[in-house]
Amino acid sequence: MKQVIGARCTLCGCSVPADPEVTVCPKCGGILDIEYDYDYIRSRLTKYELMDRTDRTMWRYMEFLPVEGIGKTPRLRVGGSPLYKADRLAAEIGLSGNLWIKDDGQNPTASLKDRASAMAVVKAEEAGKTIIACSSTGNAASSLAGNAAAAGFKTYIFVPSRAPKGKVAQLMMFGATVILVEGSYEDTFRLSAEAIDHYGWYNRNAAINPYLMEGKKTVSLEIAEQLGFEMPDYVAISVGDGCTIAGVWKGFKDLYAAGFIRTLPRLISVQAKGCCPINTAAAAHTMDWVPQEENTMADSIAVGVPRNPVKALRAIEESNGITVNVSDEEIMAAMRLLGRTQGIFAEPAGATGTAGLKKAVESGLIEKGASVVSVVTGNGLKDVANAIKAAGEPVSLPPRMDKLLEVLG
Amino acid sequence: MKQVIGARCTLCGCSVPADPEVTVCPKCGGILDIEYDYDYIRSRLTKYELMDRTDRTMWRYMEFLPVEGIGKTPRLRVGGSPLYKADRLAAEIGLSGNLWIKDDGQNPTASLKDRASAMAVVKAEEAGKTIIACSSTGNAASSLAGNAAAAGFKTYIFVPSRAPKGKVAQLMMFGATVILVEGSYEDTFRLSAEAIDHYGWYNRNAAINPYLMEGKKTVSLEIAEQLGFEMPDYVAISVGDGCTIAGVWKGFKDLYAAGFIRTLPRLISVQAKGCCPINTAAAAHTMDWVPQEENTMADSIAVGVPRNPVKALRAIEESNGITVNVSDEEIMAAMRLLGRTQGIFAEPAGATGTAGLKKAVESGLIEKGASVVSVVTGNGLKDVANAIKAAGEPVSLPPRMDKLLEVLG
Repeated sequence: MKQVIGARCTLCGCSVPADPEVTVCPKCGGILDIEYDYDYIRSRLTKYELMDRTDRTMWRYMEFLPVEGIGKTPRLRVGGSPLYKADRLAAEIGLSGNLWIKDDGQNPTASLKDRASAMAVVKAEEAGKTIIACSSTGNAASSLAGNAAAAGFKTYIFVPSRAPKGKVAQLMMFGATVILVEGSYEDTFRLSAEAIDHYGWYNRNAAINPYLMEGKKTVSLEIAEQLGFEMPDYVAISVGDGCTIAGVWKGFKDLYAAGFIRTLPRLISVQAKGCCPINTAAAAHTMDWVPQEENTMADSIAVGVPRNPVKALRAIEESNGITVNVSDEEIMAAMRLLGRTQGIFAEPAGATGTAGLKKAVESGLIEKGASVVSVVTGNGLKDVANAIKAAGEPVSLPPRMDKLLEVLG
Repeated sequence: MKQVIGARCTLCGCSVPADPEVTVCPKCGGILDIEYDYDYIRSRLTKYELMDRTDRTMWRYMEFLPVEGIGKTPRLRVGGSPLYKADRLAAEIGLSGNLWIKDDGQNPTASLKDRASAMAVVKAEEAGKTIIACSSTGNAASSLAGNAAAAGFKTYIFVPSRAPKGKVAQLMMFGATVILVEGSYEDTFRLSAEAIDHYGWYNRNAAINPYLMEGKKTVSLEIAEQLGFEMPDYVAISVGDGCTIAGVWKGFKDLYAAGFIRTLPRLISVQAKGCCPINTAAAAHTMDWVPQEENTMADSIAVGVPRNPVKALRAIEESNGITVNVSDEEIMAAMRLLGRTQGIFAEPAGATGTAGLKKAVESGLIEKGASVVSVVTGNGLKDVANAIKAAGEPVSLPPRMDKLLEVLG
C-alpha cells in the first residue's frame, strides 16, 4: 500500500503505521485518520485512465483506497449508484442551477453503509479474521451482515431487544448470529465491545474504525467522476453520528489533493431538528458539542451522542459549510417530493439532505443559481411504517364507473 | 424501427404492424408477439460493439428492442443488475457445475418488473400519452409508479381495498393516484379496464401489452453478455402469470436468431405448489391449463388465472424445459440459503427459482454437473412480514458477559 502514508490521530496528532487491527490511537484512544501520498497516487492514476475502467463498483478507485487489492473473495456489487439530473425537483424547490440526486439507496442492502461494510470485510480479511461484529439495529448492521455473507464471513450482531422485528429478520436472513440484548443501546454496545475483546473478532463499530470512512468516501469519488470532475457548488447530506459527512468530505479532499478536481464543494450538513448536536456545535463554530435527546422519525440519523463529532465538525468547518435543521414534517415532504418528481423512494434519513436543501434555498441560505448534489443515503423500503405516515390517504370507492367519474371528473 | 417486422398474434397467427397503441390482436383479441428482422439486427450490431458500450442500463440493447430511441426524457437506471458467481450456494445444494445468481432485486424499485415498466413509459410516450394506468398491488404497480414519476408522467393505479398499506404507501410516495376499489381483484381489474377505455390512458396491464415482455427480455440479454455469450445449461425462474418466463425465453431466442449465442439454455420453470396452473399444463404437454386457487406466501407469483399462459407454455415446451413446484417451506429455505451463502435478500417469489433449482438437483431432475443461472426477481425488503416468518428466532440474553459466554461457548 504505497499510497498510504499512515494513520494520524484526530485528537493528539500522532502518526502510527496503518494496520487493519489498529483502529484507535494507541496513545490517547482518539479516532484515526488514514493519510495518503497524493504524489504517488497521481503517478499511478489519471482521470482518463480511471474513466476507461470497466469495474463499476467502489473498487474502481483502488489507488485512493487503503487496500492492496481485494483478492478473489466474492463481493456484493457495492457502489456505482446512479446520479440523476433532477430538473423537476430543482424547479419545485426554486433552484435555477443544476441539481443532481445521488441515489445511494441503490446499493445491495439498500444504503450508503454498504460502502463502509464492504471495506470492513476486506480489512478483516487482511487482518486474518473471518468473524466480524458490531452493535447496531440499522443500516450498518444489515450492510455488514449482507457483505460478510457474500464473502463467506461470519457475523455477530448485537441489538437492543426493542429492535424492530423486520430489521432483525433481515440480519438473520443474511445468516448473522443476532444477539438480542435485554437492555438499552448503551448496554448493547458495551456487551459487544467486551465480546469483541474477548473473542478477538474484527470490529465494525461505527467511527471507531477509520477504514469505514474510507469506504464511505467512494460516494464522493463517484459523484466527481459522474460529473466529469466538474464540482457542484454544494453537496447536501444528512448527518447522524458524523461518519458519513466526514467520509464525503474526505473523498473530495483526496481528489483535490491528487489534482483530479480544481474546486471543493461546500457541504450542506442537514440534521433533524429533534436531534442536531453536530449542527448546533458547527453553527457556533465550536468543537464542544452537547449531547441531545433523539426526537425524530429519521432513525438512521437519530444520534444524540455522535461517535465521530471531531471529523464531522472539521469537515463542515473546512468546507465553509452550511448547517440546516429540519422537522419531521419537512422530512416527510422531501420524501414525497423525491418520489413524485424523480421516482426515488427514500427512507426518512435518506430524504433529509433534500429536505435541508429545500429549506436552504427557500430561506436564502444558498443562492438560487447554485449547482447542488443531494445524496439519498437509504431506500424507503427500509422503513415502510414511516412511508405510510408520510404518504397520506388514497381515494377509496366501490367498483362502479359512475363513482370513479364523480371522483376524477 | 427497421429492426421490427411487426406484431404477430399468438392465437390466430395473423400479423399486424407494430403500433404502441395496438396491444392486442385487432382480429381475435389474442396476445401479440413482436417480431424482429434478425439479419438487420446483425448488420447493425456485433457482440464486440455491444461490449464496448458505456451505457449499463437495459437500453444498451437498443437494436434488440422495439423502440427508435428513448429521447431526452429522464429515466431511472433500470437493468445492469449484478450476476454473481455463487460457488458456496452451488456446493450447499450439491451442484458441481457453475452456478450464477442474477439479482434483479437490484433494480430501482427493487424488482425485475422495472424492465417492463421502463418500456411501458417509453411506449406511452411514443403513443403521445402522458398518463399510464394499471391494476395491481404488486411489483408491476410500484415499478410503473416509480418509472413514470422519473419521466414526469402521471399514473392511475387501481388496487383492491384489501391491499397492504405499505405497498399502497409506496405508490403514493411516487405520486400515483391510487384508487382503492372496494371489491375483489376481478372488480378492480374490470374498473381499471373501463376507465382506461374511457379516459384513453396508456394501458400497462400485464400480458395484454406485448411491449412489456420486450422490456423483460433484457434480463436475458444481460445474462448472456455477462457470461461472455457462453450460455449455461439451465436458467431457473419463478413463474406467476407467465410474462416473465416468456420474456426470458424471448431474450435468448432473439440472441440465438441474431447469431450472438450458439446454444439455448433449458428453462427451469418454478411455481409454488399451492398455485401452479402453468406447470401443471406444461408437465402434461397441453395448452389446456386449468385455473387454480392461490395458496402460497409468494404473492408475486400467486396467479391462479394466468394472463399469459400461451407464451409461457410455449417457452417451456420450446426450451425442452423442466417444471418444478415448491412448497412455502422450500421457498423460505431458499430465502435463507440465498441470504446466508450469497448475501442476497430475496422476496418469496424472488427466491422461488432457487428453491426449484435446489429441488431439481436433489431429485436428480438435472445433472449435478450442470451450469445454471438462477434469477432472483425481487428484493426481500418488499415483503418484510414473510422475511420475519422465514428468519427464525434470535438469541436473547441480559447484558452480561457470563450469559453470552454460556450461550456462545
